[in-house]
Amino acid sequence: MPRNAFYAQSGGVTAVINVTAAGVIETARAHGDRIGKVYAGRNGIVGALTEDLIDTSLESAEDIAALRHTPSGAFGSCRYKLSKLEKNPAEAERLIEVFKAHDIGYFFYNGGGDSADTCLKVAQLAEQRGLHLQAIHIPKTVDNDLPFTDCCPGFGSVAKYVAVSIREAAFDVASMAKTSTKVFILEVMGRHAGWIAAAGGLAAEKDGDAPQVILFPEVPFDEAAFLARVDDSVKRHGYCAVVASEGLRNADGKFLSEAGIHDAFGHAQLGGLAPMLANLVKDKLKYKYHWAVADYLQRAARHIASQTDVDHAYALGKAAVEMALAGKNGVMPIIERISDQPYAWRIGEAPLGHVANVEKKMPREFISADGFQITDACRRYLAPLIQGEAYPPYVHGLPQYVRLRNQAVPRLTGREFKL
Amino acid sequence: MPRNAFYAQSGGVTAVINVTAAGVIETARAHGDRIGKVYAGRNGIVGALTEDLIDTSLESAEDIAALRHTPSGAFGSCRYKLSKLEKNPAEAERLIEVFKAHDIGYFFYNGGGDSADTCLKVAQLAEQRGLHLQAIHIPKTVDNDLPFTDCCPGFGSVAKYVAVSIREAAFDVASMAKTSTKVFILEVMGRHAGWIAAAGGLAAEKDGDAPQVILFPEVPFDEAAFLARVDDSVKRHGYCAVVASEGLRNADGKFLSEAGIHDAFGHAQLGGLAPMLANLVKDKLKYKYHWAVADYLQRAARHIASQTDVDHAYALGKAAVEMALAGKNGVMPIIERISDQPYAWRIGEAPLGHVANVEKKMPREFISADGFQITDACRRYLAPLIQGEAYPPYVHGLPQYVRLRNQAVPRLTGREFKL
Repeated sequence: MPRNAFYAQSGGVTAVINVTAAGVIETARAHGDRIGKVYAGRNGIVGALTEDLIDTSLESAEDIAALRHTPSGAFGSCRYKLSKLEKNPAEAERLIEVFKAHDIGYFFYNGGGDSADTCLKVAQLAEQRGLHLQAIHIPKTVDNDLPFTDCCPGFGSVAKYVAVSIREAAFDVASMAKTSTKVFILEVMGRHAGWIAAAGGLAAEKDGDAPQVILFPEVPFDEAAFLARVDDSVKRHGYCAVVASEGLRNADGKFLSEAGIHDAFGHAQLGGLAPMLANLVKDKLKYKYHWAVADYLQRAARHIASQTDVDHAYALGKAAVEMALAGKNGVMPIIERISDQPYAWRIGEAPLGHVANVEKKMPREFISADGFQITDACRRYLAPLIQGEAYPPYVHGLPQYVRLRNQAVPRLTGREFKL
Repeated sequence: MPRNAFYAQSGGVTAVINVTAAGVIETARAHGDRIGKVYAGRNGIVGALTEDLIDTSLESAEDIAALRHTPSGAFGSCRYKLSKLEKNPAEAERLIEVFKAHDIGYFFYNGGGDSADTCLKVAQLAEQRGLHLQAIHIPKTVDNDLPFTDCCPGFGSVAKYVAVSIREAAFDVASMAKTSTKVFILEVMGRHAGWIAAAGGLAAEKDGDAPQVILFPEVPFDEAAFLARVDDSVKRHGYCAVVASEGLRNADGKFLSEAGIHDAFGHAQLGGLAPMLANLVKDKLKYKYHWAVADYLQRAARHIASQTDVDHAYALGKAAVEMALAGKNGVMPIIERISDQPYAWRIGEAPLGHVANVEKKMPREFISADGFQITDACRRYLAPLIQGEAYPPYVHGLPQYVRLRNQAVPRLTGREFKL
């Protein structure tokens, strides 16, 4: 008797998390003998707790296929961390209740580090309660900071966006520099790990090319060294293009730009670093500047997604279902690199217990000795991840992104649950 | 005896100003019997004043063709306004000296309103001095605020970038809104005219679609109405996507965000509006927000350029040379619209005397009665301008933009000129 699957998206969404959703749903549909319906949680695990499930079987094959070129989270995502099981037994009871009511036999959770933790808790809960439920975590995060996997789906596309954008903006500032803007600063995401900032370095083909300065969270900000480097670039090349990670910290380990509010996980909300650095450049070097903050544009930029990233995202969704069918539980499919050039990869597997709440930062050997550039080793690692242009279809000059029907599954528990 | 041509790029560069350069150079090359070499001014008119000319005849046909897919100003641009002829006779003398020394018979100046003014001064100067020089201005500005022409090259590509970006970011915030970000604000360019902000409105296909709020420079900012509109969108749709023009002003006509410094033309340098609006939303509505400032990314985004824009840009460069060959002087080729749908256009001509220093703002009938949306008339105007994806070639996952040799023409005047 086929049992139903639960799939949900968690944390910050990406340009390709829906590609993974397509991989899960299409693979599940191909195994109708073992898997019944795929119910998506509306807004991640919140959908499970509130019994707000979406019946994906009501979506056409065409619409599910269109998820391959649609950014964001088609079913809604959430920033919601499950309590420790013993701390909030009502929450755990509720999950058991909803999963039992809807005969959920497979739990696929698509997210980053915090989501791996949620997935692990569900796996443990099921085991404690004798509930036959296989919990598989599917990696996703633009921050590229999950352990075990060679890279994280979502990152390759942000990397491509940032490398393309800083190359373009640097061409712009170079042509304005004689009588106008000499310094351009692009602030990018990456809370604690400098992977996204590092990707900007791919725009440089030879020494001296933009970006001339990259600021990593892994390297404490040294104001004097930064200003000297910017000044040197302006004097040498006429201009300076800077890529700055939002997570840049000072020598005391504090974020340079602290917005003063915190997100639902207690993380500091960052942003506003670029204008701060621009003011510094203005005050100390007197150069005319421009700055940009890419924010959501970078992680939603499906229009310039990496084909490699799209391929990874789909393969991981497919692999997650295949692992479930093979009887696995509490694991995560990962990307394993076979070779840099020609780029070759395969799907591997990691135990979930070691994934949750670990952040993989940039290794020191990926950052130049002076702290402002990426090394050749880093370039070899990053280069394959931005390969290929996976363009979405366009109508009337705009990309055609699908909006699913997202019809709710009738409720069976007969009770509400307060988050 | 063929005489040489001078071509230069002025003001803020765009994704397609080099397409116009290709149109000028390739058309001139096809008329070697009438036009000798095309000398490009290094950094606009500054190159003429300092006798820093680039010999474009040393560039290969392939490299000139590659300008069609290369953003920024390949020869360098400038923000430099010529003095009134009578106020700075030395400057005027210098131009005459350089143009005579290099046998310049054709002057092509590629820029916006300020550049049209420069071009007009050169035309007047040549006439006063009996110098046989035909001065043709070629329009360009992302602000789309030049009179006479139906649209300005550079605008269509920014419009496409902004419409694509806000569509993508809105999909993102919609999927996060349940437990996290509810309001997203994208700040775009457009100093005094709301054309770029208006283009964001193309992302909406039906009532209620993002962007739910557009803030135009033409509509004085009404804080209460803005907050009410954002709140209504969050309550109705779960989120709100805002496109805000950097040139937004309050009821007193003052820029909402005044950075406090001024560019070389005396214009206020804007920026920082998005974080200001975001703070307002946080303080008054308590919603979690994100904001982005696209800045140079939007105008340099050749990777998502509009094919219509590319076609216009090339045709205008070609037409400028043809007008010169037809004996015209002190004119500007323009885009004339024949029909909206199917979109049809042709090249027209405008007298330069009426172009300089006039800014074409959004007509009131292009903005909805409540001031937060574009009308159907505006949509009919904008829609054709973002049609078609003129993708650049990619190598190793990155767009291949050409860097010209830009070899200097030997100096003949034997003297320096101090700007």
